[in-house]
Amino acid sequence: MSELRKKILHMVNSDLSDIETALMENLNPHLDLVTQTARHILFSGGKRLRPLLMVLCARICGYTQEDAKDFATVFEYLHAATLLHDDLVDGATMRRGTPVAHSIWGNSTTVLVGDFLLARALSISAQTGRPKIIKVISEIAEEMSQGEIHQLMRKGKLDISHSEYLEIITRKTAVLIQGACRVGAILAKASDRMETSLSEYGLNIGIAYQIIDDLLDYTADSTILGKEIGADLKEGKVTLPVIHALSVATPKDRACMEDIIRKQAFSADEFKTIVKMLNDCGAIAYAQQLASEKIEAAKAALSVFPQTNTKDLLSYIADYVVNRNM
Amino acid sequence: MSELRKKILHMVNSDLSDIETALMENLNPHLDLVTQTARHILFSGGKRLRPLLMVLCARICGYTQEDAKDFATVFEYLHAATLLHDDLVDGATMRRGTPVAHSIWGNSTTVLVGDFLLARALSISAQTGRPKIIKVISEIAEEMSQGEIHQLMRKGKLDISHSEYLEIITRKTAVLIQGACRVGAILAKASDRMETSLSEYGLNIGIAYQIIDDLLDYTADSTILGKEIGADLKEGKVTLPVIHALSVATPKDRACMEDIIRKQAFSADEFKTIVKMLNDCGAIAYAQQLASEKIEAAKAALSVFPQTNTKDLLSYIADYVVNRNM
Repeated sequence: MSELRKKILHMVNSDLSDIETALMENLNPHLDLVTQTARHILFSGGKRLRPLLMVLCARICGYTQEDAKDFATVFEYLHAATLLHDDLVDGATMRRGTPVAHSIWGNSTTVLVGDFLLARALSISAQTGRPKIIKVISEIAEEMSQGEIHQLMRKGKLDISHSEYLEIITRKTAVLIQGACRVGAILAKASDRMETSLSEYGLNIGIAYQIIDDLLDYTADSTILGKEIGADLKEGKVTLPVIHALSVATPKDRACMEDIIRKQAFSADEFKTIVKMLNDCGAIAYAQQLASEKIEAAKAALSVFPQTNTKDLLSYIADYVVNRNM
Repeated sequence: MSELRKKILHMVNSDLSDIETALMENLNPHLDLVTQTARHILFSGGKRLRPLLMVLCARICGYTQEDAKDFATVFEYLHAATLLHDDLVDGATMRRGTPVAHSIWGNSTTVLVGDFLLARALSISAQTGRPKIIKVISEIAEEMSQGEIHQLMRKGKLDISHSEYLEIITRKTAVLIQGACRVGAILAKASDRMETSLSEYGLNIGIAYQIIDDLLDYTADSTILGKEIGADLKEGKVTLPVIHALSVATPKDRACMEDIIRKQAFSADEFKTIVKMLNDCGAIAYAQQLASEKIEAAKAALSVFPQTNTKDLLSYIADYVVNRNM
């Protein structure tokens, strides 16, 4: 484990433990099958980044009430609902080192438990009694489904542009992380300035998070990642490293990459060739650099807040997002 | 078309047309694929029962604002989201005489567009700015997913009891119709007494609606129904007529029915045998009678309201639910 990750975990130890308890207590779904399936996705090593960010953003705006942890579960439930449906849509087999839910309980249960978690998230958000919070959260759910549909529509297409890629990852990933930060501020009845700053922090973290996620699919150690690398390309998902490489490669390298990508069922050697080309043409470095810039923007957005432990922590989390290896 | 249906349609003509317009306008999903898929399920001959009930229940409580129709779309979107996912879960092929969405756009798109419609419904409900309304609606979504999961868990099981059947249909169908009626009252800021009455009206209509739906699977003309009859049994869904028949049949008839049901891939002749047994032992009449009793309870719940055209209409709609043939 990296030093940065250790430092963060030490600082958030008690918050994470409260979030785990709240996730268990708020699940309460009455039916065994729901509990089993929901637990599988909820308690299989998630990083709890989203609820943690909500709690910390509420805290940096002066919120001290205990119920923050209950409302924070909304963001983990939304995330889990999306993972259940996305793994199904993507035909994924492994997540975080364990078989995906639909391979254990079947597609039908997975669709319905995803629906339940989405509804549960909105139900908990309704308990805040704050229309603004509920509006933000329901709009996030809308954006996320549209981001996923957009990605699905572009699957297998090689002509996806840099800006279209950013639009997709913003909707499917960043709006949820942005929303967690923003709702923390709204819960704390923070000033518009603080709300906007945390919203910007979350948006930038969210974009960087997905860029790194997509990058890890080419650079990670699959035993650490908990799933096979190269999975995106096999599913026809063309992400930033490839988009950049296709735009800068020599015609010969471009044709070679396109051939391999079009086949989808490429060999391990062919995948190595792709990774080498991505490195050689600077595409890996480019994606890493863009993620780092987003993280710098995220940290800069925190400048409206005075120096506190919580501010340090938000800054460390930003650094971690771009330096993680899983 | 029955005289009753004609009379109702004549009275709600202008409301239905406003609801159609609101459904089109509120859809606004930005992506072509979402529009196509959502339109397929939304504009293929739905009866608009749920939004219509919301509008009428708001009106009977004195609500006169035009926005009722916009909020009413919530109930059609929730319904459509459920249909998309349920047809997928059930492996259905036809609905209302047209191929189901997943047979045209595939499972992935259908899952994601269902998610979008669910999120859109909650987003529109958030626009009311009324936490109570949002709470009711998000709890409905939670109940519905649990009802569907409960049904899935009991698929193919012959030992399902009368009360378990009622619990399942209440959650998967009745709470949405009940919620439409109740939200109409809440929107109109009606008294608790009115809200409770309309809630009871909706709950009873909802239960009767599903009992009749399940009955039509044995008694309908499949060209009018828009899908093959006997589909429930083929999917392993044991509904009220069969539950009742199994509890009153002679041991010989019971063994015969159980054999046919266990096979699932029964012949047309075997299905006719089942239907004859259901008629002979009074199970068809029993289900019809129970639905009629629920409809009488629904109409009795309207007694708190003075005589008006809207009250007549709610009463006619109750009668229609139990007399429909599609």
